[in-house]
Amino acid sequence: MSQETFAIKSDPALWEKLDMDVERFSNMPPMLTGAYQGIFLEQKNRPQAMVYFDSMIENIFTGRIQEMVDAKEEGRPVVGTFCVYVPEEIVQAVNGVCVGLCGGSPGSIPDAEKILPRNICPMVKSAFGFKVGRICPYFQVVDFVYGETTCDAKKKTWELLNDYVPTHVMEIPQMKRERDKKLWIEEVKDFKAEIEKISDKKVTFENLQGAIRVLNDKRRAMQRLNSLRHHNPSPISGKDMLLIQQIAFYDTPQRFTEKVHELCDELESRIEQGNAVAPSSTPRIMVSGTPMALPNWKLHNIIETSGAVVVNEESCIGTRYYKDTIDENAQTIDEQLERLTERYMQIDCSCFTPNDERIDQVLNEYKTSGAQGLIDYCLQFCHTYNIEAVKLRQMCEKEGIPFLAIESDYSPEDVGQLQTRVEAFIEQIQG
Amino acid sequence: MSQETFAIKSDPALWEKLDMDVERFSNMPPMLTGAYQGIFLEQKNRPQAMVYFDSMIENIFTGRIQEMVDAKEEGRPVVGTFCVYVPEEIVQAVNGVCVGLCGGSPGSIPDAEKILPRNICPMVKSAFGFKVGRICPYFQVVDFVYGETTCDAKKKTWELLNDYVPTHVMEIPQMKRERDKKLWIEEVKDFKAEIEKISDKKVTFENLQGAIRVLNDKRRAMQRLNSLRHHNPSPISGKDMLLIQQIAFYDTPQRFTEKVHELCDELESRIEQGNAVAPSSTPRIMVSGTPMALPNWKLHNIIETSGAVVVNEESCIGTRYYKDTIDENAQTIDEQLERLTERYMQIDCSCFTPNDERIDQVLNEYKTSGAQGLIDYCLQFCHTYNIEAVKLRQMCEKEGIPFLAIESDYSPEDVGQLQTRVEAFIEQIQG
Repeated sequence: MSQETFAIKSDPALWEKLDMDVERFSNMPPMLTGAYQGIFLEQKNRPQAMVYFDSMIENIFTGRIQEMVDAKEEGRPVVGTFCVYVPEEIVQAVNGVCVGLCGGSPGSIPDAEKILPRNICPMVKSAFGFKVGRICPYFQVVDFVYGETTCDAKKKTWELLNDYVPTHVMEIPQMKRERDKKLWIEEVKDFKAEIEKISDKKVTFENLQGAIRVLNDKRRAMQRLNSLRHHNPSPISGKDMLLIQQIAFYDTPQRFTEKVHELCDELESRIEQGNAVAPSSTPRIMVSGTPMALPNWKLHNIIETSGAVVVNEESCIGTRYYKDTIDENAQTIDEQLERLTERYMQIDCSCFTPNDERIDQVLNEYKTSGAQGLIDYCLQFCHTYNIEAVKLRQMCEKEGIPFLAIESDYSPEDVGQLQTRVEAFIEQIQG
Repeated sequence: MSQETFAIKSDPALWEKLDMDVERFSNMPPMLTGAYQGIFLEQKNRPQAMVYFDSMIENIFTGRIQEMVDAKEEGRPVVGTFCVYVPEEIVQAVNGVCVGLCGGSPGSIPDAEKILPRNICPMVKSAFGFKVGRICPYFQVVDFVYGETTCDAKKKTWELLNDYVPTHVMEIPQMKRERDKKLWIEEVKDFKAEIEKISDKKVTFENLQGAIRVLNDKRRAMQRLNSLRHHNPSPISGKDMLLIQQIAFYDTPQRFTEKVHELCDELESRIEQGNAVAPSSTPRIMVSGTPMALPNWKLHNIIETSGAVVVNEESCIGTRYYKDTIDENAQTIDEQLERLTERYMQIDCSCFTPNDERIDQVLNEYKTSGAQGLIDYCLQFCHTYNIEAVKLRQMCEKEGIPFLAIESDYSPEDVGQLQTRVEAFIEQIQG
């Protein structure tokens, strides 16, 4: 897609119908168009198949929203979530739409700070502010949201969010023993009951089996893609990879899977042809830590405009979302729910204690991706990832891995300082 | 006790035996002596019975530590905790010592910040720093510590603390439904097993019944004391009340109970005689929120040197510690553990969601204490109390209660600013 023709679309009539603050929101598409052109479209030698993902961004506030409005008119539920622990297979089973509502924009934070404390996670503030300011069409289209208890800030914010949109909460335990699994399965069953209620449709062995396959396929496609991107020289940029992993949270799974495979096919040819986005001598950086929700491209943009390439994201908007699939051999719905819960229990968020398997996982991904340095990215005030970074640093020291811990929010204020630190880190890698 | 004779004692030989950094710690007793003289002993017309609590402070680093060393030599376990959710009755049942290790001092924070992120709770940093720097005799004397999962910062810090002292963790669920209770009881049983292991002594129906009575008696004594202090004009200062509630976490329960009752008897005579620490026209302030661990007297000192009196602490070092007792009518040990768990489930920490009973409890205590304004105190970066303060504010607006939310750490830097805000708040109450 050429930089001149790319434009994020507007649809004030649709937004009006969704009770948005249309006047205020109207500034968003042109603003995001400009940012996207500068950050993504100026990249050289992007894969052709990125054209689909560019179009998903063009339609982010219109076409994709219209699809969700249509789904609702067909009686299909539309459910908003904030965490990869909420099992979207259940929503898929009743042919519903599951959409990630994590906020990645500084624009809605002042709305949130009228109510919430300032010194909490920017992602939580951004999401809450989107709803309070009525400036996110996804928040406006959902039937309800399903939060969870993975961190203090989110857990307590859901209580307040419930004043603006029906908010259910899934209790995610803090350890992973048999007693925690028991509790967790009950939570999954509650979620299922809520989805059945809103959709007026039963989750059956058959439709759940189909849903598990759909999402396993999606996760396998993403695994394939991430595996290909690990090739040196890189056939695709880290920015484009981040973008695709962000789009995974609002696209239709089947279509998304198909488009990811098309991209994978292209990357395979690229690798064969030695067609890369950067020479093999380019410093390769892996990013671990907290998720980067759309349109948070800050760190990747800094890294890749500083002459390095990002080769892996160990994050919820990254490998934590797709590294595990659900065993498809269950014979009953109870077994399915148990296999499903077991899969979700493998996700190694820092909300768990102990969580040493995450340290092992980071090391494993580091080796697999052929990275030469690890940047741990922590959203400001995220205590669990921030403290767990101490263990990551220890592991990196032991393994001789160059390590940089960054804590940042969505404001542009620290960009200069981060740029300096990232550049110094790249120099260190280059030796 | 006169200001001239009061002195916090030193015992370098004892500290040496506990592997403390004796040279560094030697500065602590004289420093704290000075602070205590200024903050406590300059108060006028203190109850006579405060002489015992003053002596507990004089012996805080010596006599009381020696008692714990003696207990260990008798084979009794000494267990450190950080939270009112860890059931001390179980420790008491085997005649062990349970001591609260929450840190209230800025002095150990630089030690912690060499390892932990800066932007987490000062109480967690202070406690962790005490251990890392070997500058807290209580941390040095314990056999092990038992942490819990009530907040992100604590939960993840225990993983690191375990490198310095054996650290067990009790999972406290995040909701209070039947399934949470089931998990919770299992956690209580794990705690019991750990205490039995370290003490090589069984927790039986009989010794647990005795322990429940001892701690119920202690809680009832504190209820009596808090009820008397609500009298207008106040027979005791808020500072002295806070001090007693802090001492509750390291004194022997039986002796403490006896001394609290002696104080209560004196307060009853004082009330009869109209002998108060301030005239009935003194503005009466209730404090809610996060605990103030020894020697954190910052806010109370500001309030009471600004011409008001603190009449209630809705806090873990406050009413949350003693408002509930355990039903003593269980017939079996399993029933005892269930009744015990039920009692602990009544504690309304903001770590739970939803937690509306706390809002009701604050209002209830506000009315009972005859307060004229509520100051909500939040330790910096404590997300759960900080966000829950939004609901407190809403309740206060609805009820017409003057409300001030304060977020602070242990540094003296914001004292001037807090003083100004508190003075303005007191003026507002006076109308």
